[in-house]
Amino acid sequence: MSELNLGFVAINYISCTPEYQGRFEELFKSRAGAIDTLPGFRHMHVLKPQVPGEENLVISYWDTEEDFKAWTKSEAFIKGHKRGFEDVKKAKDAGQEPPMTSSFKTYEIITN
Amino acid sequence: MSELNLGFVAINYISCTPEYQGRFEELFKSRAGAIDTLPGFRHMHVLKPQVPGEENLVISYWDTEEDFKAWTKSEAFIKGHKRGFEDVKKAKDAGQEPPMTSSFKTYEIITN
Repeated sequence: MSELNLGFVAINYISCTPEYQGRFEELFKSRAGAIDTLPGFRHMHVLKPQVPGEENLVISYWDTEEDFKAWTKSEAFIKGHKRGFEDVKKAKDAGQEPPMTSSFKTYEIITN
Repeated sequence: MSELNLGFVAINYISCTPEYQGRFEELFKSRAGAIDTLPGFRHMHVLKPQVPGEENLVISYWDTEEDFKAWTKSEAFIKGHKRGFEDVKKAKDAGQEPPMTSSFKTYEIITN
């Protein structure tokens, strides 16, 4: 963190198969919002690429990195990802490619 | 756009050479804020990666894609990028690699 802490951002970059994209959107549109109650959570946005096939972005804004890390170890995290994790597990158990893959990158806000 | 327009997001993914990273941050920290006056502009964040060498993200939020496009064709756009463009031109004129490269990707907000 720099001397002035403007905030912390985590972005989950999510690739979906064409068949899964609609389901991915549906999962987020019907999310229970457990994350919203976490300490240090500010807000989040789910972004769909204008170019089909590019990654979806789930951007969450936090007061500090510690707040974000606490979320990733929380019940809310497991609960919030339950349906997506199950979809991936189901494909794996059936010997299929996962319908989505994801990776987190983390950032410091340097200016607004 | 989907039936419900929650907003439009443009992300400029910017790679800097290690030598240029500090200058990049300085340019944004001292930005004149011309973009803030544009119709449909909501807010922006400049994100520095926690892992050195990954891309910086300049995220701008807009009411509509049209508002974003109007900005890219505006005086404010040229003015806002003047110093960065000059740095790139200077390197090019000297036969050097550009100190930064950038590319825009655009998104629709599907949920918050």
